[in-house]
Amino acid sequence: MNLSDIMEDFQHCVCEGGRVITVPEEMAAYLTDWRGNKTGHARMVLQPGSTESLARIVRLAAQTGTALVPQGGNTGLVGGSVPETDGNAILVSMTRMNRIRSVDPASDCIIAEAGVILQHVHEAAAAADRMFPLSLGAKGSATIGGLVSTNAGGTQVLRYGTMRAQILGLEAVLPSGEVLDQLSPLRKDNSGYDIKQLLIGAEGTLGFVTAASLRLLPAPKTVVTALVGLTDPAAALGLMTRLKPATGDRLDSFELMPRIAVELVTQHVPGTRDPLEDAYPWYVLMEVTSSVAGDALHDALEAALAAELAANRILDAVIARSERERGELWQLRETIAEAEKADGKALKHDISIPVADMPRFMAAAAAAIEDRWEGAQVFAFGHLGDGNVHFNVRSDARLPRERLMLLRDDVAALVYRMVADHRGSISAEHGIGSLKAGELAQLGDPGKLAAMKAVKAALDPMGIMNPGKMFV
Amino acid sequence: MNLSDIMEDFQHCVCEGGRVITVPEEMAAYLTDWRGNKTGHARMVLQPGSTESLARIVRLAAQTGTALVPQGGNTGLVGGSVPETDGNAILVSMTRMNRIRSVDPASDCIIAEAGVILQHVHEAAAAADRMFPLSLGAKGSATIGGLVSTNAGGTQVLRYGTMRAQILGLEAVLPSGEVLDQLSPLRKDNSGYDIKQLLIGAEGTLGFVTAASLRLLPAPKTVVTALVGLTDPAAALGLMTRLKPATGDRLDSFELMPRIAVELVTQHVPGTRDPLEDAYPWYVLMEVTSSVAGDALHDALEAALAAELAANRILDAVIARSERERGELWQLRETIAEAEKADGKALKHDISIPVADMPRFMAAAAAAIEDRWEGAQVFAFGHLGDGNVHFNVRSDARLPRERLMLLRDDVAALVYRMVADHRGSISAEHGIGSLKAGELAQLGDPGKLAAMKAVKAALDPMGIMNPGKMFV
Repeated sequence: MNLSDIMEDFQHCVCEGGRVITVPEEMAAYLTDWRGNKTGHARMVLQPGSTESLARIVRLAAQTGTALVPQGGNTGLVGGSVPETDGNAILVSMTRMNRIRSVDPASDCIIAEAGVILQHVHEAAAAADRMFPLSLGAKGSATIGGLVSTNAGGTQVLRYGTMRAQILGLEAVLPSGEVLDQLSPLRKDNSGYDIKQLLIGAEGTLGFVTAASLRLLPAPKTVVTALVGLTDPAAALGLMTRLKPATGDRLDSFELMPRIAVELVTQHVPGTRDPLEDAYPWYVLMEVTSSVAGDALHDALEAALAAELAANRILDAVIARSERERGELWQLRETIAEAEKADGKALKHDISIPVADMPRFMAAAAAAIEDRWEGAQVFAFGHLGDGNVHFNVRSDARLPRERLMLLRDDVAALVYRMVADHRGSISAEHGIGSLKAGELAQLGDPGKLAAMKAVKAALDPMGIMNPGKMFV
Repeated sequence: MNLSDIMEDFQHCVCEGGRVITVPEEMAAYLTDWRGNKTGHARMVLQPGSTESLARIVRLAAQTGTALVPQGGNTGLVGGSVPETDGNAILVSMTRMNRIRSVDPASDCIIAEAGVILQHVHEAAAAADRMFPLSLGAKGSATIGGLVSTNAGGTQVLRYGTMRAQILGLEAVLPSGEVLDQLSPLRKDNSGYDIKQLLIGAEGTLGFVTAASLRLLPAPKTVVTALVGLTDPAAALGLMTRLKPATGDRLDSFELMPRIAVELVTQHVPGTRDPLEDAYPWYVLMEVTSSVAGDALHDALEAALAAELAANRILDAVIARSERERGELWQLRETIAEAEKADGKALKHDISIPVADMPRFMAAAAAAIEDRWEGAQVFAFGHLGDGNVHFNVRSDARLPRERLMLLRDDVAALVYRMVADHRGSISAEHGIGSLKAGELAQLGDPGKLAAMKAVKAALDPMGIMNPGKMFV
């Protein structure tokens, strides 16, 4: 069978509700990543409308050794959903499998297909007086399949965990074309290896996630949000350690920001302002929530912060008094990326280390970078409670941004080496994709890398699933 | 090299802090399971004192094709930690690797070796004003390695999840003898496949768990415990659905019991009594907790239960007014197994199905069994909130217990078939071991079974790890 016959057969795998795209102009939208850093090529784009249709595609790919690249909302940051440049792969977009199959408040579960957009899951949960406890900036585009395949994080991991913690069940098409039917939303199941755990965070290299059963929680009825000024990350960590028990372990978010973040945001993002009178070296944005309306959480947080102020352990604090004020506080955190972009290009590192070591790591890594490259400035912010900061590097006039950009590999090598020395991860929440495959091969635990290769070879012996990602 | 030389080499792998047992009388304690249902044989018992020593044992086993059977506290219920009867395996007891490596309140993490007893983890956490949120009846003997390898459950899964949800990091020796070093307690890590998830619940068939980093939570300061009488499991499920939001999602336990449980316990267990004046068809034992001392949880639960009573949705309720009364309520639940034993042998099934379907399943399965075998009586109780009941079958005078015991396979076949029809699991928390390997092969999802076999062959190509378990 020649190649064009094979490609025709692939098109025939797509039926009811599906779509085939072969026109280069239409395909282009699927072939470049969200940041515009990577463009690949593909033989065609297939959008299957059902698990059965997708299984046919994968079986044919396994028979013919055709590479497949899964894609959801294409909002990833490591090039994981874009094909390589050889043009031999078929891109499979999951966006037409976008049905919410069920919302069940009695089981606290929603079952959504891979192409459902996160925002729609939030809305369906809210309509049933429930909450889906994972959110992130790209929620209007990111899909459930992509969130599962990258084990997504966000700003509520502190209390609720990453995507992995939300998954009660999973349906997938394995690289053989066989369907993994583990979708039943079981809270407990110890009948054999939990194979679905392998698909979570595998970035499409072990098969296609087609649907997920996700846990729901009671909808929040009381939300208290505060911004605190303090001296340094160690003070922030100490504050968190005391606030967790004091608020009944209901701390949803605990986001660290340096002064420069507040300055860049208020400078570059219209409508933002610094809500505290004086300037402080560091800030924490925190939020506690309860499903009980009129819960005494506001008083509890206010009393706890007053005690911290009285003990000189924090420098200042403000609690949002309205939904509008709450929005303003969150805007400070959520527009950091936008403000950074307006400020000019920066080098970005999404890293994690054990929570208690983070203040020491941040100080040591910033000193090492700023000592070695004059004018380099570390700009670290993010999920302190998860031991995960976005460790970015910008520069002042002494080091023009174009020159900084040329140092990309050297700076990354230094950061990742220090992360490894602190027993941390070179990718906390964004994944490996093609961007960090080299670093993983170099810095990963040999025992883990050997097991990863064995698993990949066992489940995808033809190497058809998302080649060029995760492995070099 | 002949067999006795090889066995001598194995003994040499054990050094500092380790122990070798070859005397049959001393070995016997390791070769029979806790329930006394299964006895195996082994060439010897090795008790390594360190990960390095264990890695030497496993490398030698991989070179010589020697079977290894891992064992922790030997409290399992499916024969998973007992060797087969051929006597070719070496039993490796992990009880000498029993060091708590660190307790870190700032990272909310405890690092414990595989042989540490659960009770000791509870005590170390409490000493740091923290809680380790997993507990079960065997906590005085069960070890961390066994709890990880069986993904243990217990009575607090409803709020905190199974053992899998507690694991931040894992160290293991893979079947190749290579060490998997994923022990660093990272809250987020998306750098490659999460291989440690495979070890969790693998029952020792994919390697040895040697240590785990476990999450800690704030210690509970307010605990409110109530017993409710109600008409049926559907009423209990409705109650849970309303209480979760009303208590701020702080429902730790929600345990269902039929009237017969209260009768058997008060009849067979000295010092127990029925705390409610009248008899009710079903009961729920529930507990809500908070890390805030003096939290208004008691009032919240009392108000919620009063409203339920006023609406005739429950029949009666009592809230424990002291730690002694709390102990009495829990004793009713925790001595069910003891009371059942005193009552005579029963057929036991540890099953789960989606939470919302449990009332219908319980009614249908009980009717099917009691219709088919005159005198058979279903006795189902347990973790309703997790969709996991212990679905046991006893009998009255019409069906003598010896005859009931002969129906073991027929009753199990009927129960497991109905569980499969309801998209449930034939093992919710006890695992597969050797006891249910046949059922899993017969009833498991073909896609999952194929992936399990591929993973097993990839990571343990010699088949040395715990043969006879999980797979037939």
